Amino acid sequence: MKIKITKEHEKLKDKRSWASFINSLSGFKSVNLIGSKSSEGQENLSVISSLVHLGSNPPLMGLVIRPHSEDAPRHSLENILETHCFTLNHVSTDFFIKAHQTSARYPRDVSEFTATELEAEYIDSFHAPYVKDSSVQMGLKLRSEYYIKENKTHFIVAEIENIYTMDKAILNDGSLNIEELKTVALSGLDTYHSTNKISKLSYAKTNKKIEEL
Amino acid sequence: MKIKITKEHEKLKDKRSWASFINSLSGFKSVNLIGSKSSEGQENLSVISSLVHLGSNPPLMGLVIRPHSEDAPRHSLENILETHCFTLNHVSTDFFIKAHQTSARYPRDVSEFTATELEAEYIDSFHAPYVKDSSVQMGLKLRSEYYIKENKTHFIVAEIENIYTMDKAILNDGSLNIEELKTVALSGLDTYHSTNKISKLSYAKTNKKIEEL
Repeated sequence: MKIKITKEHEKLKDKRSWASFINSLSGFKSVNLIGSKSSEGQENLSVISSLVHLGSNPPLMGLVIRPHSEDAPRHSLENILETHCFTLNHVSTDFFIKAHQTSARYPRDVSEFTATELEAEYIDSFHAPYVKDSSVQMGLKLRSEYYIKENKTHFIVAEIENIYTMDKAILNDGSLNIEELKTVALSGLDTYHSTNKISKLSYAKTNKKIEEL
Repeated sequence: MKIKITKEHEKLKDKRSWASFINSLSGFKSVNLIGSKSSEGQENLSVISSLVHLGSNPPLMGLVIRPHSEDAPRHSLENILETHCFTLNHVSTDFFIKAHQTSARYPRDVSEFTATELEAEYIDSFHAPYVKDSSVQMGLKLRSEYYIKENKTHFIVAEIENIYTMDKAILNDGSLNIEELKTVALSGLDTYHSTNKISKLSYAKTNKKIEEL
């Protein structure tokens, strides 16, 4: 039985509970680590769950960053705006606790790579560091920054320039088996999940029944 | 062993394979149904995986809609811009095949509710229809539309006005147990997954080890 939920709900009265609840409403979220480096060479690593696929041709990603709070991604935003590049790295079941730790409020001169013992990797002369243990690594260039006036967040649009992953996880139709790569999913602010494939479905057409492939 | 992946990869040479691959890169995605209704009363229902949490106070969601293709969400966009309201409804393991079917290119005068036999529900005089069987139903008002010039998509910012869900799934810290509600996750364009909770983690601090709660 569903009920109407408001801020007056006994479990949602305080601000943090309300935020936990609202953060659960979008559904399962991706979990990636943003690797960046200032022009002076200060590395930064920050977990992010607000990544969204924007398009394939060109390959574009969008991500929401909230700069005015004391969130860890603030330093990422500064580095991205300064150097116009960053990396995205899938978080797997092997190191999600270290990834979560990057959300602590480290001072700017502390590298979360060092603090969490996640190893940085530099590939093909790209300025920003990748996460060595990640099974899907992407190097991106900033294309635009949109200021979301409704709550003073920034929507970053970036183009994927470099991709490194396991060849064996690419299926015949081009899709990547991220479940095999042990990529995790997030619910709310702090709950990590592994996945079980239910079904791969055929392309939907108006005059044909969906098939489970 | 990871390798560098380019468009020349033997499995990624055609446009659809490349799109499947790029769509897999962001990680697991949420799956929601957008319910909308034109001012003349034509209902529309469309599956969407590009939803992102924007903020909790006010409760804001962002979603990417690609209007210039023949995608099903195009009719949703028209209705949203016309009526300034829509619903979002979690997709569960019970009806993900029907939800996927809404991505077929139905003409505007066909209601995907009728075509897929997902039942519309009207609650508290809200103009847009909810999906009756969904365990998390949200009614939203349009706040802004940002045009993403890089690939001619639209980033819709909307505020959550009404929320209906199962009281028993709200945990003591306010978070919603969407795994218990059987909400699905998506990878790529067409692969649906259920989830297994691995761990709920404590708030990260610089001077304290993360605890599994």
